[in-house]
Amino acid sequence: MSDELQKGLEGVLVTESELSYIDGDAGELVYRGYDIADLAHGASYEEVLYLLWHGELPDAEELAAFSEEMAAERAVSDSVMATVRDTAEADEVPMAALRSAVSQTSASDPDADAEDPTDREANLRKGRRITAKIPTILAAFARIRDGKEPVEPREDLDHAENFLYMLNGEAPDDVLADVFDQALVLHADHGINASTFSAMVTASTLADLHSAVTSAIGTLSGSLHGGANANVMRMLQEVDDSDKDPVNWVDDALDRGDRIMGFGHRVYNVKDPRAKILSERSAELGDAAGTPKWHDYSVAIEEYMAEEKGLAPNVDFYSASTYYQMGIPVDIYTPIFAMSRVGGWVAHVLEQYEDNRLIRPRARYVGEQDLEFPGVDER
Amino acid sequence: MSDELQKGLEGVLVTESELSYIDGDAGELVYRGYDIADLAHGASYEEVLYLLWHGELPDAEELAAFSEEMAAERAVSDSVMATVRDTAEADEVPMAALRSAVSQTSASDPDADAEDPTDREANLRKGRRITAKIPTILAAFARIRDGKEPVEPREDLDHAENFLYMLNGEAPDDVLADVFDQALVLHADHGINASTFSAMVTASTLADLHSAVTSAIGTLSGSLHGGANANVMRMLQEVDDSDKDPVNWVDDALDRGDRIMGFGHRVYNVKDPRAKILSERSAELGDAAGTPKWHDYSVAIEEYMAEEKGLAPNVDFYSASTYYQMGIPVDIYTPIFAMSRVGGWVAHVLEQYEDNRLIRPRARYVGEQDLEFPGVDER
Repeated sequence: MSDELQKGLEGVLVTESELSYIDGDAGELVYRGYDIADLAHGASYEEVLYLLWHGELPDAEELAAFSEEMAAERAVSDSVMATVRDTAEADEVPMAALRSAVSQTSASDPDADAEDPTDREANLRKGRRITAKIPTILAAFARIRDGKEPVEPREDLDHAENFLYMLNGEAPDDVLADVFDQALVLHADHGINASTFSAMVTASTLADLHSAVTSAIGTLSGSLHGGANANVMRMLQEVDDSDKDPVNWVDDALDRGDRIMGFGHRVYNVKDPRAKILSERSAELGDAAGTPKWHDYSVAIEEYMAEEKGLAPNVDFYSASTYYQMGIPVDIYTPIFAMSRVGGWVAHVLEQYEDNRLIRPRARYVGEQDLEFPGVDER
Repeated sequence: MSDELQKGLEGVLVTESELSYIDGDAGELVYRGYDIADLAHGASYEEVLYLLWHGELPDAEELAAFSEEMAAERAVSDSVMATVRDTAEADEVPMAALRSAVSQTSASDPDADAEDPTDREANLRKGRRITAKIPTILAAFARIRDGKEPVEPREDLDHAENFLYMLNGEAPDDVLADVFDQALVLHADHGINASTFSAMVTASTLADLHSAVTSAIGTLSGSLHGGANANVMRMLQEVDDSDKDPVNWVDDALDRGDRIMGFGHRVYNVKDPRAKILSERSAELGDAAGTPKWHDYSVAIEEYMAEEKGLAPNVDFYSASTYYQMGIPVDIYTPIFAMSRVGGWVAHVLEQYEDNRLIRPRARYVGEQDLEFPGVDER
């Protein structure tokens, strides 16, 4: 027992993990030994899920079987769809709607009342189901909110394509499907971030996987975590509306003491390797659409922040202009982060169950002591 | 940075708190300086909520206003009630149903889209609403599951009475109301337990109070945390069914290497002060009903465990026989724990927001390194 206060648990080693490794000085991220750039360029999101959950890359047959099993689980129950509809019509915050609907999927999960919540095979099935259903929930929510009817999932499309199909009502072209799949790969895992940690804390009481993922969605919703990508885009829109040069806009914001969104990260001291990849895609999309300004603003801000503050962009910074140019509504960026990161949450919960210990730190009590209790009339 | 692995974060000081203090050697628990026994005998659950949230005991006028404001928030939206109905009809686990329904209350909370999720006044209102609605959700769930219609809340009853009224369709007598109110007081806060910690982790990203409480409900559902009280009762029922003397039953269970539920606690080395109080009530209820056997079994097991294992009972051990003798269904015990502990969750989240730091520990990477990425056909 140490008497030192460790409020953010910064640097505290809470587990051993085989899932992802971050070298913050070299700007490297690996999933189970594979470099993120190799995975982003060579593997689909389904392959990455298989890698994270099963410990190795699937061969062609394993991948086909896995993808098929997952695609078959995309539909949600009428009762979950009713919650999606009700929350969309109530204009609920998208992450809150996702949290409620995903939580409710346990009611129809055939493995949800498993005797042993740590059963690995049951959890692989549950993890597949939850991951398969998140895009369906999110696309339906976004459409209903816009006065449109939800689009049923298609089993013949892969995970990334099918989401864009359900969101827009038409299958995406190859470039959009590829960029989106890559974004999912890039966000799938990232060590013990706050949402992953909350999933582990929940699982550590032997609560079930649905509880753990529900905690993680709530945790990701905060502006210090998943909420950042949407805030980057809001900033780029402000820059665009301001008629100022992006550098002047940032300068004025810094003078006011504002924080520039999408920069700095507790674990990277150099440019986030995911930002490098998304930056290239953001440029491509801008060139293809003839609207390079969003990428140009981003580059100008990146260069200025490096010079002025010595800060490098994180993954949120370039996912903003990438998603925007794909026509995705800004307040759906964080739920898309959840759609991908669920892969990591499930993988970390599997690890937690395999060698579980209840996660229960303590507080230093700094309140009153030995007070005499007065009756209500003596106060 | 220490390289020591601290898997359960045991003894790690994660925050300073003015809320509750546990002296595990003396067997003492205080809320904001007041001894738990004084509060259990002198204060209602509403008074304890006020104490935890506002920092001091209310005077008569403050208490009346607070109780009235909370009572006015008991009804839930049609959409939340639809989720309660759907999950009850799907025979969902009660804690999962509670998690989904409470999550969904944010969609109709007038403060849920507050600009600043840390706004204290808005969070006091949200906390009141969530706390007021949990009994309504839970009673409706339990009734629908039994083929009965939900009973509307009554504003003229206090928090404890109203729950028993909604659960049973008739107002409880004074003894039952008093015992139940006392149980709520005893469970309202307990330092940084796992569910409270999960609420803090969620809040630390600046996620909102509804997200934090939803995480906590999921975390409490695990058998190493809130699930224990129901398991104690299942054990007492097994003892009863076995025709064995409780001591022999326990002896056989210990010989098999089974864990006896309701004993030992990471922070108490002596008898949990809450167990002392509930033990008295359990005895009273048994005497009044002419069924002292549940309490007698408990006492016999307590004495034997002290002798054989040097272990003392925790709060779960005597809440089991107490709730059972009140006619509460066994699988509702853990949700009742949530109904009370929500007071502590809200209070700790208020503290977290007041001096926030993102909670993000790290993992020691023990996985593969530098793997060459093979195409799918090379695997």
